[in-house]
Amino acid sequence: MSTTTVVLQLICPDRPGLVSELSGWVANHGGNICHADHHTDAGAGLFLSRIEWGLQGFNLSRQSIISEIEFLSINLKGQADLHFSDELPRVAIFATKQSHCLLDLLWRVRSGELEMHVPLVVSNHRNLKFICDEFDVEFRYIPTHNQQKSLAEKEILNCLKEAKIELVVLAKYMQILSANFLDQFSSVINIHHSFLPAFKGSKPYHRAWERGVKLIGATAHYVTQDLDDGPIIDQCVVPVSHRDEVEDLIRKGRDTERLALARALRLHLRRQVMVYRGRTAVFA
Amino acid sequence: MSTTTVVLQLICPDRPGLVSELSGWVANHGGNICHADHHTDAGAGLFLSRIEWGLQGFNLSRQSIISEIEFLSINLKGQADLHFSDELPRVAIFATKQSHCLLDLLWRVRSGELEMHVPLVVSNHRNLKFICDEFDVEFRYIPTHNQQKSLAEKEILNCLKEAKIELVVLAKYMQILSANFLDQFSSVINIHHSFLPAFKGSKPYHRAWERGVKLIGATAHYVTQDLDDGPIIDQCVVPVSHRDEVEDLIRKGRDTERLALARALRLHLRRQVMVYRGRTAVFA
Amino acid sequence: MSTTTVVLQLICPDRPGLVSELSGWVANHGGNICHADHHTDAGAGLFLSRIEWGLQGFNLSRQSIISEIEFLSINLKGQADLHFSDELPRVAIFATKQSHCLLDLLWRVRSGELEMHVPLVVSNHRNLKFICDEFDVEFRYIPTHNQQKSLAEKEILNCLKEAKIELVVLAKYMQILSANFLDQFSSVINIHHSFLPAFKGSKPYHRAWERGVKLIGATAHYVTQDLDDGPIIDQCVVPVSHRDEVEDLIRKGRDTERLALARALRLHLRRQVMVYRGRTAVFA
Amino acid sequence: MSTTTVVLQLICPDRPGLVSELSGWVANHGGNICHADHHTDAGAGLFLSRIEWGLQGFNLSRQSIISEIEFLSINLKGQADLHFSDELPRVAIFATKQSHCLLDLLWRVRSGELEMHVPLVVSNHRNLKFICDEFDVEFRYIPTHNQQKSLAEKEILNCLKEAKIELVVLAKYMQILSANFLDQFSSVINIHHSFLPAFKGSKPYHRAWERGVKLIGATAHYVTQDLDDGPIIDQCVVPVSHRDEVEDLIRKGRDTERLALARALRLHLRRQVMVYRGRTAVFA
Repeated sequence: MSTTTVVLQLICPDRPGLVSELSGWVANHGGNICHADHHTDAGAGLFLSRIEWGLQGFNLSRQSIISEIEFLSINLKGQADLHFSDELPRVAIFATKQSHCLLDLLWRVRSGELEMHVPLVVSNHRNLKFICDEFDVEFRYIPTHNQQKSLAEKEILNCLKEAKIELVVLAKYMQILSANFLDQFSSVINIHHSFLPAFKGSKPYHRAWERGVKLIGATAHYVTQDLDDGPIIDQCVVPVSHRDEVEDLIRKGRDTERLALARALRLHLRRQVMVYRGRTAVFA
Repeated sequence: MSTTTVVLQLICPDRPGLVSELSGWVANHGGNICHADHHTDAGAGLFLSRIEWGLQGFNLSRQSIISEIEFLSINLKGQADLHFSDELPRVAIFATKQSHCLLDLLWRVRSGELEMHVPLVVSNHRNLKFICDEFDVEFRYIPTHNQQKSLAEKEILNCLKEAKIELVVLAKYMQILSANFLDQFSSVINIHHSFLPAFKGSKPYHRAWERGVKLIGATAHYVTQDLDDGPIIDQCVVPVSHRDEVEDLIRKGRDTERLALARALRLHLRRQVMVYRGRTAVFA
Repeated sequence: MSTTTVVLQLICPDRPGLVSELSGWVANHGGNICHADHHTDAGAGLFLSRIEWGLQGFNLSRQSIISEIEFLSINLKGQADLHFSDELPRVAIFATKQSHCLLDLLWRVRSGELEMHVPLVVSNHRNLKFICDEFDVEFRYIPTHNQQKSLAEKEILNCLKEAKIELVVLAKYMQILSANFLDQFSSVINIHHSFLPAFKGSKPYHRAWERGVKLIGATAHYVTQDLDDGPIIDQCVVPVSHRDEVEDLIRKGRDTERLALARALRLHLRRQVMVYRGRTAVFA
Repeated sequence: MSTTTVVLQLICPDRPGLVSELSGWVANHGGNICHADHHTDAGAGLFLSRIEWGLQGFNLSRQSIISEIEFLSINLKGQADLHFSDELPRVAIFATKQSHCLLDLLWRVRSGELEMHVPLVVSNHRNLKFICDEFDVEFRYIPTHNQQKSLAEKEILNCLKEAKIELVVLAKYMQILSANFLDQFSSVINIHHSFLPAFKGSKPYHRAWERGVKLIGATAHYVTQDLDDGPIIDQCVVPVSHRDEVEDLIRKGRDTERLALARALRLHLRRQVMVYRGRTAVFA
C-alpha cells in the first residue's frame, strides 16, 4: 500500500473561502489530508497554504493533479508548487576545506533523515575528496584561486546541468556566488556562521570575539544577490564566555552550523518552508 | 468594526473530508478563517482541529453558531468547544506564600498579555494580601492547617461558585486538591517546580540538587487526580552548576516557573491547547 | 556570627606567582577563601582575578584591607576593587512608560534576589509612579520632551548626587544619555531590546520582524558613549516564527529583557563582572 | 617551545590557606598558572581544586611533580590526580547498531576536538565495522546475544587490557555492564537518551511520547552499578510537539545525544570534571 503523499504550497491574495476551496478540492477527489497549515499575512494581504494528503485512494493521476493545480493557481492569481514525496530531489553540496557540515549532511542522507540524492560534491580544494569516496559520491575539484571566477562558475554550472541538480547546499563553501551564477541557478541554501543580521560577511567569529558577545550562532538561509541578506530558514545559538578564545568560538560554532543547516535543509526538503516578502513561513 | 473572532476546537474520529467540511461551513456563512490548524493522531484514529475566524461579516448569530456546532459535533461523533474572543473567562488564582507567580500573572493581566478577569485570589496564608490590594483583586484567606481539608475545600468551592469562576490557576499553591474537589471543579492548571516526570511530588529542587542534574525546569500542566501526571502544556529549563546550592536552584527555578505558567495560561486562554489521551496538542 | 564576605577584583599585567601572592596574603591574615576565579587574557598580557573570603576570623580591619589592597595594586601596576557584602549599593532605576523591567527589579529587590537599595526611580513620564508608591520608592518625574535635554540631565545628576546613587539601571529608559552626562556619572547598566550587535539603535523589534529572524533577544550591557556598543554582561534569546507580528515580538521580547537585565544586575552586584578591553569577564 | 600543561585535580577536607598552599607550591617552582578554579562544598566540608600551569620553565621533572603531589595529597588527607596535556589517553568506544555517536566521536578525534587515541571499537553487532575501517580503527565484534554475558564481558575485558584502554565510552551501547565488569574496569562514560532522572531504563523516547513531554533530552554520565544513577556530566534538551511521533523523538534526540556525549567527553579529557558525593563539579 502506497504511503506516498503530495504537498501543495500555495501563495495568493487573501479572500474568504480559500481554505474551504482547497480542502474541498482534495476531498472531492477522495484525498485524506494528513497536514494542513495556513498563514495570512494581513499586512500584505497574502494567504499562504501548505496542504499534504495521501495519494492512496486519490482519484487523480499525478499529471492531472499538476494541471488542475496549475489551473487553480491561475484562477487565484497565485503561485503554487507541488511535491510528491517519492520524488527525491538531486542536491549538490559545495564545500571548501572544513568537513563538519559535509560529513554531517552525508551521514543524515545515509541514515534517512534527509530525503534527497547527492550525486555531486563540488569543492575548490581537494582535501575533502576522501569523505566523498567513503560515501560513494562524485567529487569535483573546481579551483577558484588560479582561474577567473567566471570560468570556475561556468564549469560549476555545467556540472550542475549534467548532474540534473535541483538544489545547491553551501556547506561552508567560502566563496561568494556571483549575480550571474544566481541568475542561472537560484535554488541555493547557505549556512552563515553568525547570528544574522549580526556579523554579516567575513570572519564573524573573530568579530564576535572582539565584540564580547555572550551567545554565538549560525543562520541557514536562501541565497540572494544581497550577501547574507536572503530569507532566513533557521537559526541556532550557543553560549560563550570570556574563557573562549576565537578558536573556541569556531569549535562551538561548528555544532550550531551543523544543526541549523541540517534542520533548514530537512524543512526545505519536506516543503515546510515558503518564501514571501524576503521572509520565510516555516510550517513545522 | 468588530475584531471579535470565534475559535472552534473539535476532536472526532478521523475520516477523509473533515477539513473541507469544517472550512466549507465557515465559508458558506461568510466567515474568513484567520487561523486553521489540524492534527491527526494516526495511532488513535483521531482528528483534532482548531479553526478561528472573524465574526465580522459572518451571517450567523452567536446562538446559531453554538447550536449548529453542537449539531455538527454530534454528527461527527466528536466533541466541540467554542470560544468568542470578547468573552473573557473568570479565573481564580491560588497561592500560598511565594509571590512571584501571583505577581507575574496579575501584571500580565494588567498589561493585556493574559485576556482574563481575576475576580478572586485564594490563599492558605495571609502574607500575599497586600499584592491583591495593589491590583484591586479580592483576596480570600482560607487556611488549611487548622481545619479539616474537606471543610477548607468546601469553602473554596463555594467561593468559586459565588465568583462564577471558570478556571483555577495554582500559582505555587502548595496544597494537593482532593479527588472530591476535582470532581466538582476540574478546570485547573498547575505549575510544578520540576521538569516532569522527573521529581514528582514534594521538594523537587532539593532532590534535583541531590541528584546533581545540570538543568532544572518547571512544568505547567492540567491537574488530574494522579498527582503531577496531568497533561503537560509547557516546560521550561535553565542550566545549573555545582556552584548552585539548593537556594540557587529555587531562585533560578522561579524564573522558569513564571515563564512556563504564563505561557501555558496564555495558550489555554487563546484556546490553543487541546487535551486528548492524557496529552496536549498545542497549536502555537 | 558574621557571614560577611569581601570580594577583591584585580586586573594587572600577567606574570608568574600572582595567584599565590593574592591567596597567600589572604591566608596570612587568617582568611578562608570561599570563591576564587582567575582569567588570563594571553593576547593582552592581562591577569584578572576575583577572590572572595569571609571576614569572620580575618585579622585586618576594613580600613586596613582597603589600604593594603591599594598598596598591592600599585605594586602590581594594576587596578583593584573591593566590596564588602554587607554594604548594599544605592541604585537608581530609570524608566519611561513600560513597567515590566521596573516592576521585576523592584520585586527582586523585595524578595532578596538583588542585594541593593533603590532610593530613587527617575522617569520622563508619570505613568509608573503608582508602582513606586506600592514599593515605597521615591519617584522623580523629570520630563525630557518639553525642556532642553541638558537641563533635564542636570536635574537628574543633582538627584543622583542628593540620593548618593552609585549605580544607574536603565530599565527601558527610552532616552540616550549624553556624553556630558556619562562624564559625570559613568556607572550605568542598560537593557537593549535586541541581540546586539544586531539591531542597534531604535525600533529593533520592527527591524527584526522585517528581517524575518527566527530568534529575538535582549542584551544587558554597560553604557559607554558609543550607543549600544558598551561591554556586554548578559544576553537572552527566544524563538519567534512567521506567525508572530511585531507586537508578539515585543511581548515575547519583554520576558528576555526582564531576565537578561535581572541576571546582569545580580552579577554586577555580586562583583562577578570585570570589564577589560571593551569586554567583560563574568565569573559565574 | 613547549606548550604542554599539567592539570592538578585535588579533593580534600576544607581548611583556610589551601588555595595559597597549592598556588604557592606552583609559583615556588617557577610555574605560571593559566587556569585555577576551586569549589567549596560547605555541606560536606570539602575543598575541590583544579589548577593548570605550563611545564615551560617549571623546575621539577614529571616524576618529581608526581611524587611531590602524592606527598601533598597524603598531607592534606585528600585525593589528587595529575594529567599532562601531551599524554593522550587511550579510549575504547562501545556501540551497538546506531552510528551517530560513534561517527561523531571519531570525526571529533580526527578534527582535533577530542584529544585522545581510539585504538579500539567494540560492538555486539557487525554493521558499524565499515565506519571503523574508514577511520582506520580496530573493530572488535563481541556478540552478547548468543553467549553468556559473563563470557562476552570477559572477552571485552581482555581486549581492553591488551589495548591498554584507560577509558570506555558507551556511545549508544545498548547493553548493561555487570557489577563484576565495573569492578574490574570502572572508568566508563555513558550517554543515556533521556533527561535523567526522567525515563531511566529502556525505551525512554517511547515513554516520553506517552507522557506527552514538551522537551526531550540526553544525559552524559559516569557509569556506576546503579543503572542510570551515576554522576551527571552534561545534559542537553530539544523541544518537541504533539506533531512528533516516537520516530521524530528518536531523530531529534540523536542530536542531543551527540552533543551531550561529545561535550562531556571533552570536559573529562581536559580534566574539567571532578566527582564527589555522587555528583560532579564541572570547571568549564
